Amino acid sequence: MGKELTSREQDYSQWYNDLVIKGNLADYSAVRGCMVIKPYGFALWENMRDVLDKMFKDTGHQNAYFPLFVPKSLFEAEEKNAEGFAKECAVVTHYRLKNDPNNKGKLMVDPEARLEEELVVRPTSEAIIWNTYKGWIQSYRDLPLLINQWANVVRWEMRTRLFLRTAEFLWQEGHTAHATAAEAIEETRKMLDVYANFAENWMALPVIKGVKSPNERFAGAEDTYCIEALMQDGKALQAGTSHFLGQNFAKAFDVKFSDKNNKLDYVWATSWGVSTRLIGGLVMAHSDDDGLILPPRIAPIQVVIVPIYKGEEQKALIDATVLPIIAKLKALNISVKYDDADNNRPGWKFAEYELKGVPVRIAVGARDLENKVVEIARRDTKEKTTVSIEGIDAYIKQLLEDIQQQMFNKAKAFRDEHITPANTWDEFVHILDTKAGFVSAHWDGTAETEDKIKELSKATIRCIPLDNQLEEGICILSGKKSTQRVLFARAY
Amino acid sequence: MGKELTSREQDYSQWYNDLVIKGNLADYSAVRGCMVIKPYGFALWENMRDVLDKMFKDTGHQNAYFPLFVPKSLFEAEEKNAEGFAKECAVVTHYRLKNDPNNKGKLMVDPEARLEEELVVRPTSEAIIWNTYKGWIQSYRDLPLLINQWANVVRWEMRTRLFLRTAEFLWQEGHTAHATAAEAIEETRKMLDVYANFAENWMALPVIKGVKSPNERFAGAEDTYCIEALMQDGKALQAGTSHFLGQNFAKAFDVKFSDKNNKLDYVWATSWGVSTRLIGGLVMAHSDDDGLILPPRIAPIQVVIVPIYKGEEQKALIDATVLPIIAKLKALNISVKYDDADNNRPGWKFAEYELKGVPVRIAVGARDLENKVVEIARRDTKEKTTVSIEGIDAYIKQLLEDIQQQMFNKAKAFRDEHITPANTWDEFVHILDTKAGFVSAHWDGTAETEDKIKELSKATIRCIPLDNQLEEGICILSGKKSTQRVLFARAY
Repeated sequence: MGKELTSREQDYSQWYNDLVIKGNLADYSAVRGCMVIKPYGFALWENMRDVLDKMFKDTGHQNAYFPLFVPKSLFEAEEKNAEGFAKECAVVTHYRLKNDPNNKGKLMVDPEARLEEELVVRPTSEAIIWNTYKGWIQSYRDLPLLINQWANVVRWEMRTRLFLRTAEFLWQEGHTAHATAAEAIEETRKMLDVYANFAENWMALPVIKGVKSPNERFAGAEDTYCIEALMQDGKALQAGTSHFLGQNFAKAFDVKFSDKNNKLDYVWATSWGVSTRLIGGLVMAHSDDDGLILPPRIAPIQVVIVPIYKGEEQKALIDATVLPIIAKLKALNISVKYDDADNNRPGWKFAEYELKGVPVRIAVGARDLENKVVEIARRDTKEKTTVSIEGIDAYIKQLLEDIQQQMFNKAKAFRDEHITPANTWDEFVHILDTKAGFVSAHWDGTAETEDKIKELSKATIRCIPLDNQLEEGICILSGKKSTQRVLFARAY
Repeated sequence: MGKELTSREQDYSQWYNDLVIKGNLADYSAVRGCMVIKPYGFALWENMRDVLDKMFKDTGHQNAYFPLFVPKSLFEAEEKNAEGFAKECAVVTHYRLKNDPNNKGKLMVDPEARLEEELVVRPTSEAIIWNTYKGWIQSYRDLPLLINQWANVVRWEMRTRLFLRTAEFLWQEGHTAHATAAEAIEETRKMLDVYANFAENWMALPVIKGVKSPNERFAGAEDTYCIEALMQDGKALQAGTSHFLGQNFAKAFDVKFSDKNNKLDYVWATSWGVSTRLIGGLVMAHSDDDGLILPPRIAPIQVVIVPIYKGEEQKALIDATVLPIIAKLKALNISVKYDDADNNRPGWKFAEYELKGVPVRIAVGARDLENKVVEIARRDTKEKTTVSIEGIDAYIKQLLEDIQQQMFNKAKAFRDEHITPANTWDEFVHILDTKAGFVSAHWDGTAETEDKIKELSKATIRCIPLDNQLEEGICILSGKKSTQRVLFARAY
């Protein structure tokens, strides 16, 4: 019965792949490093996207769409940004195929259709967008410009993993322009708060808000803010970033505005993004050895109803009870699937919806009807309860909220248990190797030490938490003075 | 005051560009043939997309996402399809840039990062999708497979026009798989009906449903169904297509299923799509020399309210009246913008919202308040009416419906007047040159004659209408026998 899953203990990485593929979220494709997002996975992404989109609009942003391609000369204009992405760019060099004269029925790139200037497939859109903003911004009246784009981007990563790191992925990228540095920094932090709110209250994923060290900054940014989450194997996952770009792109693309006194100055910028990578984090933070566990607020199916019956007559009786329940749940905006397909047994269906992480399962048998009850199973704890049909809609609504909250609480307890202080190098390495999670340790603030720590331990500075306390101490590696602890972890 | 627009009579093509650019729908970009969809244009597209997406889901389809890139060997597998698109393919050949040793600060394509197999940027996704379906379809239980994708595609067109023909565009593409030819044909026609319903009832755009002649078929299709609309200059616009693909792609990608008797057969396919091109059609079908005219059901802003006042005191009185009106309209799901910015005069705002095609404008002056009335202007007819504030919400709701209906009626009357029968070649050419529109004429059914007619007149067969009456006649060009009239037109 059911599909064989690898357990977390056996092979965490294989467990993750099994869940993604057998849980019908995504599939490998014929294109190296690119995935197919299957309907169930895409429905999850649509729910996430819709919530985020509303948050962006509620904070004054509008959507727009910019070209997929970036001419090389624009791409290289902001040098740090270009340097940061140059090694992972897919490049279009030709615009035509022709019949291959040496290979009947086959095509070849037409050497005569070479582009005068190569086009980079966008790995991120600052360059093409700031080149456009130049034509849109003249005066302080044009500011702030608050734009978001939902798009596909391509980064030619050497090692890819479904959702977590793929050559093509879907994301949103906000790109805003402001009259002052203070306004831009406020925007950067506001969008970080939006991401944290989304992660914690919709994805049930506790996150730490922080600032990246210079080494881990987005290429071309003055400051990168991030939210960091913890997976069940103790590795960290960067779940979203919000960048204060200073005037770097405005200078690279010569975007100036005249202020109220007619003084010209360069515009201040931010950019911020989250991607389909979040789905990978969602899977790894919550799921168990029986499959996915999806938080009710973004689950494509919140409730599945499975009838247990013999013969048409019993089925008709069950239908008569179930259909009004469905109507009541839908009236509460609860998404319900009634799986009365007769080609699979109830046990198979139970396993299937456990695998798919549907938060609540209702089983309805003929005997239940006599007692006017149904059996309810929650996916997260696997508890089963017999519940009266009377008032079941309110019960389910409350149950979904409880599950959402409990998933968050559980993930938060795990995360909090896995923030461990280390005061010496040996402690640091020992924690990483035995307990994993975040390690809170003193660092001397230099890029050199950071690089050395990464080289020796494979741990990176995930962030300097925003609410960090200043505290005098000694760097775990160099022994030099330090003013605060930062969070290290091995990461995805 | 306002932005200078070219009139239709002066230069229809320039009028269109003016509306798109000055109406803030789109902008040119730094990438040849690619456009930027501006926030106002994108809000329009979002409204269209949301309506269509719901229609697709209501007819049983699910969304998914497939890779942007198609390896050349997959692309060429269905030969007719490949041949049809080969000449307009953007091709990725390299995956890395490096510093240009001869040009400090500049990048070059790294010749050592050449892909083993070139990747075509999808001009359409049949190849990558049918290659995936091979892994998803084994049995009749897996059918029908009803999937849609919202995506960007690239076709390297030589002559581009904003929205109508751009190198990159946004669209949706449905790709379905069925057990029988009959089911696939039924799906093809059902989705054509969805498109026609959307065009007529949301875009207020009357369309003719028909079948393409073999010459105009989608490359790789057995039959292409289409909806054809008429623009104000008498040229036709293909607004959507739905293809019956037979078993062509199933054979090219070896996608077989076992039926209930365990007999293996190739799967039957359809694909269907509409794109941002629809926005171009919308602009050209309805707008006038003062700007866009958008149908209420998809307009980003349905009602704009402009206050007319002197001083803070009057403004406060107007606010006290306007804010409750806004609340009432919003309660009816009507999107309202209150433009009380003090940096532009009312006259400027009137022109601006006329240019942007906002269906209803409400002007509120201090004197109006005394009389408890406001002035309402409808964009389509430019009629102004003084209306009592009491009950204004119901009035506006009805007015929006009236405008929607009247826009359709007007476009339909124009379209119907521009379907002209021609019985001789001279008549045919005369109609095209003087009146334009659709010309209903006999054609002998051969590709040769069709090509010749196109060469001589620049008119193509737009479609053979689905509700066509059979009628004996004589081909306007060849004089050979014909069994029915078909619709010709010059087209976008």
